Amino acid sequence: MPHIPLPPDLPGIRGAMAFRPETALPLNALVEILLRGPSTLSRGERELIATYVSSRNSTDYCHNIHGAIAAAHLGGNEELVRQVKVDYLQAEISPKLKTLLAIAGKVQQDGKLVTAAGVEAARKEGATDLEIHDTVLIAAAFCMYNRYVDGLGTIQPTDPAFYRERGKRVAQDGYVAVSKKYLATHTPASR
Amino acid sequence: MPHIPLPPDLPGIRGAMAFRPETALPLNALVEILLRGPSTLSRGERELIATYVSSRNSTDYCHNIHGAIAAAHLGGNEELVRQVKVDYLQAEISPKLKTLLAIAGKVQQDGKLVTAAGVEAARKEGATDLEIHDTVLIAAAFCMYNRYVDGLGTIQPTDPAFYRERGKRVAQDGYVAVSKKYLATHTPASR
Repeated sequence: MPHIPLPPDLPGIRGAMAFRPETALPLNALVEILLRGPSTLSRGERELIATYVSSRNSTDYCHNIHGAIAAAHLGGNEELVRQVKVDYLQAEISPKLKTLLAIAGKVQQDGKLVTAAGVEAARKEGATDLEIHDTVLIAAAFCMYNRYVDGLGTIQPTDPAFYRERGKRVAQDGYVAVSKKYLATHTPASR
Repeated sequence: MPHIPLPPDLPGIRGAMAFRPETALPLNALVEILLRGPSTLSRGERELIATYVSSRNSTDYCHNIHGAIAAAHLGGNEELVRQVKVDYLQAEISPKLKTLLAIAGKVQQDGKLVTAAGVEAARKEGATDLEIHDTVLIAAAFCMYNRYVDGLGTIQPTDPAFYRERGKRVAQDGYVAVSKKYLATHTPASR
């Protein structure tokens, strides 16, 4: 049960964002740029980084929804998403993405654990400075989103169909567009 | 030494933001709303929450700069800031702020550690739903900023005078105004 009164029909971060639309704006703008903006990493790859970090933080809403968005970008390959969560080194992803996931895993624990050797390994697989930057910031940002969702005790559905359906919609329309829709239909909860 | 080429004259998050101005925008907008926007928590109190979380994450740049900003808002009381970092329960702050710092400390570890009892304790000291929400999001956001600053290996000065001087400026002008100034004078580093 949520720790503060959140709209009961909006699970996960959506309830929190409806409660505080002022902060929802930059939170959505950030994830839109990082996961959908122009990048040499595909949208699927970036969603996999977000999914992996959320999975390591055990935030069910986030790793399920971003896993579903990743799958939607990856031709519906839910098994690949599962493999990345469980053991990405054995997953059928590029060697470069594996080195970036290694960096993301360090950031998830503590940014100070990122080493020059780990960054060099990513460079050897062709990662650019911008890709390294964005990997660090995606991992850091999901340490925020995950704590936000968990810390308010938001509702986190367990039905995979819920995430599959919504994942497809976000993959198509994006974060800002989808959230504008529900912010327009919800007035902030009493506070 | 930074893991990617950051402007050598911009320490901490400022170097990272100059490298990627697109993401600097929402990152600055978020901290501006949370720490300086309209709120029933004072700017000094909110900076203390940010300082406390950054101190627990051992991110020197962040706990030093936000500690300096907090002190600037609190009539220059650096000793109070030090006490909050070391043992906030013994610091001369309100009982309400102590319960909010307890919640922030849980979020810093893992959002799932926030309990109904902890939230109830804050309510008993007069905390509103919005104050509880903002405490959770400030703590979550600094888990992001801290990892961003550490994960890129940014330059983190050790001279207290540096933070004292800059803290005064940010306390006066705000995050967005100050960062607009340096983004205007720096073109993004080569990437």
